[in-house]
Amino acid sequence: MRSRFVVILALVLFPALSYGQRGKPWNSLPAEPEGATRAFPPQLRSELTQIRDAALQDDYAYQQLQHLTDSIGPRPSGSPQADAAVHYVADELRKLGLEVHLEPVTVPRFLRGNDSAELVGYPGQVAGTTQRIFITALYGNAPTPEGGITGEVIVARDFDELKALGREKVAGKIVLWDVHYDSRKADAGSAGAAYGEAVRYRGVGALAAADLGAVASVVRSAGDGEVRLPHTGWSADAHIPAAAVSAEDADLIARLASRGPVRIHLSLPTHVGPEVQSYNVIADLKGSEHPEQIVIVSGHLDSWDLGTGAIDDGAGVVIAMQTAELIQRLHLHPKRTIRVIAWMNEEMGAIGRDVYAKDYASELGSHVAAMESDEGAEHPLGFREKIGAAAEQELSPVQDVLRKFGANLIERVQESPGTDIEPLADKNVPAFGVWQNALTYFKYHHTAADTFDKILPEELRENAACMAVMGYALADMAEPLAK
Amino acid sequence: MRSRFVVILALVLFPALSYGQRGKPWNSLPAEPEGATRAFPPQLRSELTQIRDAALQDDYAYQQLQHLTDSIGPRPSGSPQADAAVHYVADELRKLGLEVHLEPVTVPRFLRGNDSAELVGYPGQVAGTTQRIFITALYGNAPTPEGGITGEVIVARDFDELKALGREKVAGKIVLWDVHYDSRKADAGSAGAAYGEAVRYRGVGALAAADLGAVASVVRSAGDGEVRLPHTGWSADAHIPAAAVSAEDADLIARLASRGPVRIHLSLPTHVGPEVQSYNVIADLKGSEHPEQIVIVSGHLDSWDLGTGAIDDGAGVVIAMQTAELIQRLHLHPKRTIRVIAWMNEEMGAIGRDVYAKDYASELGSHVAAMESDEGAEHPLGFREKIGAAAEQELSPVQDVLRKFGANLIERVQESPGTDIEPLADKNVPAFGVWQNALTYFKYHHTAADTFDKILPEELRENAACMAVMGYALADMAEPLAK
Repeated sequence: MRSRFVVILALVLFPALSYGQRGKPWNSLPAEPEGATRAFPPQLRSELTQIRDAALQDDYAYQQLQHLTDSIGPRPSGSPQADAAVHYVADELRKLGLEVHLEPVTVPRFLRGNDSAELVGYPGQVAGTTQRIFITALYGNAPTPEGGITGEVIVARDFDELKALGREKVAGKIVLWDVHYDSRKADAGSAGAAYGEAVRYRGVGALAAADLGAVASVVRSAGDGEVRLPHTGWSADAHIPAAAVSAEDADLIARLASRGPVRIHLSLPTHVGPEVQSYNVIADLKGSEHPEQIVIVSGHLDSWDLGTGAIDDGAGVVIAMQTAELIQRLHLHPKRTIRVIAWMNEEMGAIGRDVYAKDYASELGSHVAAMESDEGAEHPLGFREKIGAAAEQELSPVQDVLRKFGANLIERVQESPGTDIEPLADKNVPAFGVWQNALTYFKYHHTAADTFDKILPEELRENAACMAVMGYALADMAEPLAK
Repeated sequence: MRSRFVVILALVLFPALSYGQRGKPWNSLPAEPEGATRAFPPQLRSELTQIRDAALQDDYAYQQLQHLTDSIGPRPSGSPQADAAVHYVADELRKLGLEVHLEPVTVPRFLRGNDSAELVGYPGQVAGTTQRIFITALYGNAPTPEGGITGEVIVARDFDELKALGREKVAGKIVLWDVHYDSRKADAGSAGAAYGEAVRYRGVGALAAADLGAVASVVRSAGDGEVRLPHTGWSADAHIPAAAVSAEDADLIARLASRGPVRIHLSLPTHVGPEVQSYNVIADLKGSEHPEQIVIVSGHLDSWDLGTGAIDDGAGVVIAMQTAELIQRLHLHPKRTIRVIAWMNEEMGAIGRDVYAKDYASELGSHVAAMESDEGAEHPLGFREKIGAAAEQELSPVQDVLRKFGANLIERVQESPGTDIEPLADKNVPAFGVWQNALTYFKYHHTAADTFDKILPEELRENAACMAVMGYALADMAEPLAK
């Protein structure tokens, strides 16, 4: 995932507060809103319960995720693994009886080289020795030339500090953005906010550095973790090499630089290769009454290359697949079309979503809702929703169904609750993001430690239950959700 | 550190239990043993308090550790950094006015290559792709030949399981010891025990594998950590390549192997080079009355190469240095000689300690006590002691002094509470290990994440206070401690 949202600790601790009239204890719930009663006839309510209970006992998503991550492995944009994943997911959705369409998306091929760095000059250095720095190139900037580059480091703790140093001190140097991820904020439940503050420097630090004549930009890894793990990601192209070092290495460089000049050698051969043909996987489970009305359930199929993309975002793809699997296995026939989408290239420019928005521009009016999961697979708290107040009231029966495992919270948000569904949200399509309790997410995502073992089967089942229940509800309500 | 001891949670929770008559609440302490009253006259008690309070306000050890780890860096046996560290520590101890002797120790030179591994065949593999495995060679075994080796993996969860598989199934294969570190045991306070159970496979797994004809031995990293960090260390030479993979990679291989054959390519150029001259640093602060009576305070100066050896065991060296610094700064003159030792080669065979035991064989009778710190620098709980019951009683005033910051526990142990002081303990020299509350130690030690940032200044000060107070007490008691 690229964009994040604030986790509200109070809601985690007091889930009942999120229901209807806030502040009422759980045993005095308000009467159901009238719209909800009309929208959810008894049979639909019973089917939602059936879906929920089936999801909580099933390991379809878990098995699919194991194949995607263990056997196929990392799926960076344009890679053979991403291509294999497209065809694998398409085949699996065909097996479920869905109509599958591969929507062409032309993507860059990300070519990771053997990125490395070492300190070659620093106070107290032992003659004939250097110090290894744990580094990973970011996506989107220039590789270092053959043989790498060597330069003096200048440390800045924020944009203002670099600006204050000025061109005279920055030009020709390698900027280290020593911006700390606020672990205390994260531990208090606001990991998304903590991440958001740090990740700006990964995103546009190279632009700010290049503006003042720096020859490279190195950022302290955005995210939790004191375990020498560099954290990769996207960066806006500033035509200079851009990389991330581990928190420990940023600390080391900053400490040494406070005592004297520090020179670093960077070898970052990682680059963007020629464009290749890839695809969004689009699979329709046709609606029985209004096949033209679309409810999207989705995750993104591409991943970073350091780990195997289990939490970011294999999990999102497989729970979307499981929505279709559950509906088919239970022989349910929603009125509207459930469209499973495995998006391509979320991490490296989000090209897939833009292609979809263009290809389907004339049909967006009949998109009833769009859902994405892209914040891992920890216990879901509920949903972040970019919808109106009337729509929120109509959906209260879904909260009733999800209350069983504590996933009944709603946070109404102003920006899209998912990167890939943002163009749809911008066109007023009601947008839903599964809201995970991301307590460990930022420790692992975009690093080598984003691997299958981070997924707890019971939590993945809960996420699958959320997406399937909400997806089916939106596809089978009496009328399309209020826009 | 190489050997470990059980942390007793009850003692952590109820420190008063460790004092004298166990079970008495803190406000009804038993009368001081008679021997203690004789051994600790009022002036000595006052000096111990003075040392403690000075240590708790001083950053000498912290500054020294920063230089050792940030500027000198990793200090593997035989490296230029280890050599620089020897001369640096010797110079610093000379500056304090100590008589410094460099005791020659011939050590192997550890030559880390660019260790790497990849899965080249596995169920569901995408054509033309492989999967990177995070690996590090262990010390003491054979490198792979030029070009590496490729073989099928056979997974064993313990010695019995490999034996049951037998030569027919093991010969020609690469053994993966998928032995899990028991994190629950560690979280409950018994990290040392959890580590001890897992680390046996790193130590002798290659021998067991080679016995059955395996061509290489790969162990799941011993230690906490789900962050793709391989954990290096010593292994008994079995003349086959031996390495450790991260927990995640062990999981991946084990899962894939449960579904079909897995082939791995290992390139482990790491090897042991020619022997080089190194040294134990031995620095005496001569006793005012009995200079021939020796109290050793020590840590080991060599480290593994992946991190910078801050917790293992730069911390031990600098708190031993600080013992001398405090005594000199406070113009104290202990009766007996305080001998600061920075041991060489603890991690790769513990040659330094053996040389010392041989060189000083005729003087061991006048070694009053030996102390080492080699379990990081987290809050100290007190001491692990290989001493007699009478000696424990005599030392109770030291517990009184250390009670102020909760370092007043004693655990009497049967084996040496430190690797380097083991030959001395075996010769009946009272042996003391600073007992750290190693809650995070096993997450970082022997990995790339053993770095300076893991040290909290206030905790390092507490460790320095422990060693300085106990060291001075042993050197200035009325009579040498009972043996």
